[in-house]
Amino acid sequence: MTAARRDTYTPETLLAVAVQVFNERGYDGTSMEHLSRAAGISKSSIYHHVAGKEELLHRAVARALDGLFGILEEPGAVNGRPIEQVEYVTRRTVEVLVSELPYVTLLLRVRGNTRTERWAMERRREFDQRVSDLLKAAAADGDIRSDVDIRLATRLLFGMVNSLVEWYRPHAGGGADQDQLAEAVVRMAFEGLRT
Amino acid sequence: MTAARRDTYTPETLLAVAVQVFNERGYDGTSMEHLSRAAGISKSSIYHHVAGKEELLHRAVARALDGLFGILEEPGAVNGRPIEQVEYVTRRTVEVLVSELPYVTLLLRVRGNTRTERWAMERRREFDQRVSDLLKAAAADGDIRSDVDIRLATRLLFGMVNSLVEWYRPHAGGGADQDQLAEAVVRMAFEGLRT
Repeated sequence: MTAARRDTYTPETLLAVAVQVFNERGYDGTSMEHLSRAAGISKSSIYHHVAGKEELLHRAVARALDGLFGILEEPGAVNGRPIEQVEYVTRRTVEVLVSELPYVTLLLRVRGNTRTERWAMERRREFDQRVSDLLKAAAADGDIRSDVDIRLATRLLFGMVNSLVEWYRPHAGGGADQDQLAEAVVRMAFEGLRT
Repeated sequence: MTAARRDTYTPETLLAVAVQVFNERGYDGTSMEHLSRAAGISKSSIYHHVAGKEELLHRAVARALDGLFGILEEPGAVNGRPIEQVEYVTRRTVEVLVSELPYVTLLLRVRGNTRTERWAMERRREFDQRVSDLLKAAAADGDIRSDVDIRLATRLLFGMVNSLVEWYRPHAGGGADQDQLAEAVVRMAFEGLRT
């Protein structure tokens, strides 16, 4: 039994608690009991907000995916040369990762045991494919080196970007910090570390 | 009860089975019973080889760490300009990751709940630090761009390299494949994707 507090949760604030628990215990390892304890409200109060833990997972990964796919509609992602577009998308992906850190962390960790997880993985692959297509267009323009396979380059690029969720921890008031991070990723990926 | 087969394991072959189980179930989620079932021999037969599952973990991560630290003693890692050394170490790290894939995968996933895990994490940090020192020396020579922070560059480099364990699956007879992979990582990290 938990000392249940008054349920003042909104869908947003309850989601934030659930995502933290999912990231700590893994989605599979999280029960409604764990969510109830972390939120400090009863299980039936949680059921007042959502149908179950899979709905919370769906909302959380949808938030991450909306952030990522939203980038592809921005002017910087659709205007100019493909090489500029792909650099823009890379920079903005880092920014979305950082601003939606717990949601993207969860998205990157889902493993495909439920329908929601499989859907999330499928959408992630679609996003990667869109970036890969931009790299291909940039290669066709002669702006990407021809001696690196595009599929491999896409994987290495996302390997670098996605690793952020494992080690990046935002500093207090770190807006400049975040810009510097996005810039460092773009420079390293597209221009390399060598002078 | 499992239909126990005759115990023909060597320390090496038993380790290979254990590492596979650790990577599938997580080290924490693996019991001696799981190991016994996967190996097809009784628990007491396993105790004939090792004191327990932590000894298996220790041997496995030691094998990965020996492979990685061995690189730093090779002529290519100690002779020439620091920039050449760090490119050499990056290339060889990819090669060791691929040739010791299950062992390095396990090393990268340990989370620090036991003494062996904490030791492994400490050794990993030492390795990262050695590479970071090489990058610093290369920067002091003016061979690394001065607008990217070295600690950040080290993390992004390992983010890219370590992501291999999540998606790289060796092809049959893929020696050339493996060289191409190491070369692609070095080119992208040090020269960038842009022409």
